[in-house]
Amino acid sequence: MDGGIGDISTPGRIAGPAEGVSPEELALAARNHGLLLEALRYDVTPPGLHYVLVHYDIPYADADTWQLTVDGRVRTALTLDLATLRSFPAVTHRVTMECAGNGRALLDPRPVSQPWLVEGVGTAEWTGVPLRTLLLAEAGVEPDAVEAVFTGADHGVERGVEQDYQRSLPLADALGRDPEVLVAYEMNGAPLPPQHGHPLRLVVPGWYGMAHVKWLRSITLTATPFTGFQQQVAYRYRQSAQEAGDPVTRIAPRALMIPPGFPDFMSRTRVVRPGRLLLEGRAWSGRAPVTRVEVSTDDGHGWYEAELAPAVGHGWAWRRWRAPWTATPGHHVLSVRATDAGGATQPLTQPWNRGGFANNLVQRVDVFCPEED
Amino acid sequence: MDGGIGDISTPGRIAGPAEGVSPEELALAARNHGLLLEALRYDVTPPGLHYVLVHYDIPYADADTWQLTVDGRVRTALTLDLATLRSFPAVTHRVTMECAGNGRALLDPRPVSQPWLVEGVGTAEWTGVPLRTLLLAEAGVEPDAVEAVFTGADHGVERGVEQDYQRSLPLADALGRDPEVLVAYEMNGAPLPPQHGHPLRLVVPGWYGMAHVKWLRSITLTATPFTGFQQQVAYRYRQSAQEAGDPVTRIAPRALMIPPGFPDFMSRTRVVRPGRLLLEGRAWSGRAPVTRVEVSTDDGHGWYEAELAPAVGHGWAWRRWRAPWTATPGHHVLSVRATDAGGATQPLTQPWNRGGFANNLVQRVDVFCPEED
Repeated sequence: MDGGIGDISTPGRIAGPAEGVSPEELALAARNHGLLLEALRYDVTPPGLHYVLVHYDIPYADADTWQLTVDGRVRTALTLDLATLRSFPAVTHRVTMECAGNGRALLDPRPVSQPWLVEGVGTAEWTGVPLRTLLLAEAGVEPDAVEAVFTGADHGVERGVEQDYQRSLPLADALGRDPEVLVAYEMNGAPLPPQHGHPLRLVVPGWYGMAHVKWLRSITLTATPFTGFQQQVAYRYRQSAQEAGDPVTRIAPRALMIPPGFPDFMSRTRVVRPGRLLLEGRAWSGRAPVTRVEVSTDDGHGWYEAELAPAVGHGWAWRRWRAPWTATPGHHVLSVRATDAGGATQPLTQPWNRGGFANNLVQRVDVFCPEED
Repeated sequence: MDGGIGDISTPGRIAGPAEGVSPEELALAARNHGLLLEALRYDVTPPGLHYVLVHYDIPYADADTWQLTVDGRVRTALTLDLATLRSFPAVTHRVTMECAGNGRALLDPRPVSQPWLVEGVGTAEWTGVPLRTLLLAEAGVEPDAVEAVFTGADHGVERGVEQDYQRSLPLADALGRDPEVLVAYEMNGAPLPPQHGHPLRLVVPGWYGMAHVKWLRSITLTATPFTGFQQQVAYRYRQSAQEAGDPVTRIAPRALMIPPGFPDFMSRTRVVRPGRLLLEGRAWSGRAPVTRVEVSTDDGHGWYEAELAPAVGHGWAWRRWRAPWTATPGHHVLSVRATDAGGATQPLTQPWNRGGFANNLVQRVDVFCPEED
């Protein structure tokens, strides 16, 4: 024993060829909850089915004594309790949130971390105070402020660094009107559950989950860019460990399908009866509105257009899509891909990076259609 | 392709030596939710933190049109809607529920199925109608009835057998007063969430989760024992694939610890400061009341008594325990074990069976205590 934290907290690594999922990855999968894909049927994900990713532990939080501080490059530093935050005009946004690591465990080679397949996603109605209200109307922003740094109450060690979870946003994003960043205290009309940040969290519509700091304790405006672990070390797109990499920010386009028919327990392969059925699911992008959804029923060789439900005023939430399919006896691989107004389309070959971020490779759903009886 | 279901649904198997967790096991871990162990702090598990195991898919269920039939060896067959069920006198029981497969992925060799470590557990307040009321007061039991068969709405294939999920109880258990079996429509004072059986499920206090049939559609009294897949093929204690095996029924004693200190993200190893701290957690048994909880801080060599909170009228729910520990610099393995009034104690060597059921091997929590700064 060397007596140091490095004993128990090692650098990130890439799994070796044919290396199965490790006990450490399994322990993370057992803690962090994915969306059961049949729950894509709901516009708003029911309680307990939204994905959950907790870096360290859920901290104990007492809403009655919780305080949020706003300080740094502000005119007036603030200390706000929940009652005060609830006294400001509230807004509610429906937001599709996705973990930046969604799709990681499908990469080859596999970055060793939380091993999501495709289920690290969910949609909720978040209610709270616009961050803009707190910063502009209440605290006042000093002219030299460039970023807002958000600190959560969850404490742990990551890659050798002991830390409270912290992330920053550029000031322009923190003060933006669309998307509008919230300091949220309700999820789907109820107080935040412990695992979603009780009693207070940040919600940054369109951004991957790492930006939505939970158990929010402080907001500090800074005159220089934040260089903390989660900003400069984690959550960067890198091909090699040495490069600085680009920051992970907004959600890449993705569509997912409700797996049709019924499953085999162990393989999760789907069974459908021969005949016509309706494929359906959801599509989203945090970068630009989804403009097109296509379906393939021959493992990505041919594609045809799905019907995309009209946008209904929830610009940062997923949209429903549907496409007919006539199942014939045999084995099939079904896929779906989204394209957004920025022209980005989900790739057919993996977009690999060392952190395993933003892998929006098209979903593949194995389906078996037996002969009619 | 042979055109048969056997193509996609294969027999149970045991992982080979040093075989990592397979993609199929990971897909199950990504769907089925475990308790985050820090949530052992709550008497009643908050929404979304209770374990979830869904054999097939969560079925779509409309509470307004849902019907429960009670038939077979009864005097009067019944068809009951939710409003009728809610019109009977309701009872509420606090119940600790645990998956029969909890602990499976720690077994060596590892049975390949849902790969729980220790987190397949949770406690909830369930409200509903005693099954006894429906069977005795409403339907009437024919003298030749021996079992009650419960059918859920979830449909799938398992080990080659297409099925609706079905389990039975001996009539004496179905009609028992303590534990009292419920047809439950509320969890923690709210309608059942989709993943917990909306709108109706069975609750069988003291039994492993497989008995608590979700999305309950029918109850059929039979004059002969039920021989369906989940009764005779799955959920049996077997050492070899050939033997009939004994049925999995009630929950073996177990204690779990809230992992102390704070974690490393990837290894989940805990970090604690040197000095005195309080270890705490929960203990339960579905076989007899827990009478003793002991803690070890030296990887199971020495044990000392924990303080067990008094029973408070919730005989089928976990009880809190506490034990002091003075952390010293170095690496430590903490464990806890429960003993029940039947004399059963958690084992220090794995209780192996092919299905990986009821593995209540003591929990091991790796802790690192750095030197004081």
